[in-house]
Amino acid sequence: MENAATLQKKIQERKILVGIVGIGYVGGSLAEAISNAQIQTLGIDIDPQKVNAINNQNSTFLSATLDPAKLSECDIICICVPTPINELKQPDLKYLQNALAAVSANLKKGQLIVIESSVAVGTTRDVALPILRKSKLKIGEDFYLAFSPERVDPANSKFNVKNTPKVVAGLEENSHHLACQFYRSFVDDVVPVSSVETAEMTKVLENVFRLVNISLINELSAFTDAAGIDMWEVVGAAATKPYGFLAHYPGPGVGGHCIPVLPYYLLDSARQKNIRLPLVETAQIINETQPKKVVEKATKIMNGKLKANGHTPKVLLVGVSYKPETAVLSRSPALKIWKLLEKQGVSVSYHDPYVGNINGNSSQKLTKKVLSSQDLVIITTDHKNIKYAKIIKNDKPVIDTRNILAKYRQTHNN
Amino acid sequence: MENAATLQKKIQERKILVGIVGIGYVGGSLAEAISNAQIQTLGIDIDPQKVNAINNQNSTFLSATLDPAKLSECDIICICVPTPINELKQPDLKYLQNALAAVSANLKKGQLIVIESSVAVGTTRDVALPILRKSKLKIGEDFYLAFSPERVDPANSKFNVKNTPKVVAGLEENSHHLACQFYRSFVDDVVPVSSVETAEMTKVLENVFRLVNISLINELSAFTDAAGIDMWEVVGAAATKPYGFLAHYPGPGVGGHCIPVLPYYLLDSARQKNIRLPLVETAQIINETQPKKVVEKATKIMNGKLKANGHTPKVLLVGVSYKPETAVLSRSPALKIWKLLEKQGVSVSYHDPYVGNINGNSSQKLTKKVLSSQDLVIITTDHKNIKYAKIIKNDKPVIDTRNILAKYRQTHNN
Repeated sequence: MENAATLQKKIQERKILVGIVGIGYVGGSLAEAISNAQIQTLGIDIDPQKVNAINNQNSTFLSATLDPAKLSECDIICICVPTPINELKQPDLKYLQNALAAVSANLKKGQLIVIESSVAVGTTRDVALPILRKSKLKIGEDFYLAFSPERVDPANSKFNVKNTPKVVAGLEENSHHLACQFYRSFVDDVVPVSSVETAEMTKVLENVFRLVNISLINELSAFTDAAGIDMWEVVGAAATKPYGFLAHYPGPGVGGHCIPVLPYYLLDSARQKNIRLPLVETAQIINETQPKKVVEKATKIMNGKLKANGHTPKVLLVGVSYKPETAVLSRSPALKIWKLLEKQGVSVSYHDPYVGNINGNSSQKLTKKVLSSQDLVIITTDHKNIKYAKIIKNDKPVIDTRNILAKYRQTHNN
Repeated sequence: MENAATLQKKIQERKILVGIVGIGYVGGSLAEAISNAQIQTLGIDIDPQKVNAINNQNSTFLSATLDPAKLSECDIICICVPTPINELKQPDLKYLQNALAAVSANLKKGQLIVIESSVAVGTTRDVALPILRKSKLKIGEDFYLAFSPERVDPANSKFNVKNTPKVVAGLEENSHHLACQFYRSFVDDVVPVSSVETAEMTKVLENVFRLVNISLINELSAFTDAAGIDMWEVVGAAATKPYGFLAHYPGPGVGGHCIPVLPYYLLDSARQKNIRLPLVETAQIINETQPKKVVEKATKIMNGKLKANGHTPKVLLVGVSYKPETAVLSRSPALKIWKLLEKQGVSVSYHDPYVGNINGNSSQKLTKKVLSSQDLVIITTDHKNIKYAKIIKNDKPVIDTRNILAKYRQTHNN
């Protein structure tokens, strides 16, 4: 209790140093929110570029380091490292385990460790705790452990770390109270839940909800396409229902670090308990298959071109990041479409105002010359600052997976 | 155009008689909204009880009749008859076809017919129009046809016909304009869409969305149950996310006229187009299986009792209608649970303040005697005015499929 009381007082007086392990888009947003609340914050990462970028800001409350030994100086450590899936689509915990091992090696009495990385249900208790226990320190007495799922939504202009309610749970009572107190010092609304597993499952549910609903709309689009109905119009009409509906739109599949990844964590956990989750499985399959469906449509359109002797068909992908107004390429459906097209002998180039270069390929300018030399343009991500008028003027076929040209025409009377 | 102009003027001056074919909960709510707007409304039904109930109100603007010949006196006819599924889970259009045949037999020049019944995509054009054409009158010139899906939510205290946006589409231009004008005369917000198929699909999507999301939560509950996590708490925590999530809760399956029915209409249409909809199919299966899961839980609890010689196990179902604060029994999961329990030799009785009698069984009072004589109480629908304290006080096992006892304890510090 002595250690807990000391840390409690320190948080109260904001005399804490918070270490953020992993300063990607999650850790970076968190570090910003904490330091904005005038709490000393230290980013810790293995990437010198990220560390330098922070230190070059010369912020009063925020700095960064490559040195994991600095972890021992922190009062509170938030772990925000990636938790991807491997090629077999199983949880890949190496970053999390490495981070925890570094924390464990530097663990000091009175430290609170919070995991923010998205994980499978049970990871905090069954994976993180055993690693931290290797320090020989005692949970609840010497150190504290909690889980609080990140809800960072890149390019969301309305909701950030501060004004998005934060779900928090500690592994035991001291951990719980300290973690809730900590988050209350820089987040408007803290939502305590009864166990770390509940907090872990909350994040899983949020992502599974999105995956299933996006996949549902994509599944139904096959039907509406065949029936000659515009699915975007249907979703827009249904969205006028003031209760019991939430709009999701068709697309080439959903990318990013969370929605296509975390359901695999859930499926893996369920498999271990001999539980089948057919809805989640089916939604995954639909999502994974969407890029292929776009390519099938493309092939159909270019069929003559592909057969023509000596002509390599050319496709321009417009918007390649996984969502609008970001440069994040993680699991972007555009990249899958690219790969599938190349396999068919198509020459692929791209335009994306946020992404200057991919594997040696530069973003093409949307000039008349570039556009008119294409056999097909595929709009894969609908950034706001793309010059859609030029695509409309170009007389080559377009697959508009985001329906952005229709919206553009509406707003521009075009 | 003459007929259209005449009807347009009549609607403008509110000098119309609106016939409502089928005055159940959809037609009844619609008739109420129209007559409340001081438009003459005539309910037409085959059930003398419903007709008498309306006529006994002695309303200035609303009356009812059993006589279909009165259809010829109406300017606008809204069809609100049930569109159930048959035992093979295929669309059963007999009520709709009968209603349309009656309308067709009495069709007069200048009439607008609007279908509000939930139907498969294509029904207005491919089923309704041919029946109406038997009258030899011409669509768009002599008569008008539109589709506007009902969004009546029984017991919704906030949203009614007037303040719920109304999606409307006509089969051709005159039909479209007249139908939009008609609904604008008593609904706050009319949402015109580009085709009757789009309007039909909108209703399908709204119901499929609900079915899939409720089934998803029920699917995930199997996992959280095994992991010792309270799914209600998880949904509550996820619902604090201010974007990209909509709460749905676990339960014994969903009943009513729409959510479990309309997805079968969609599956039937999709089958005709050789399109598989695995997410919708899976969601249906989960929903259909929920009552069985409740009974499996019940059997587990009563296992000893069932084996005991000479003792017939007794189960009380609390709340039997398909949703709270209504008496509607249509496709209620409670009735399925009842049937399954009886098959196992269980003696079933029920308590429901809204439902006095089911097939000769009366609602039991929640007395100490009734409760203590049960082997198990199953709460299937959580009406507000049920005396939950008595169930809590009773020391017999309870399956609370709605988590209402936990909520009751929270609000009553019990």
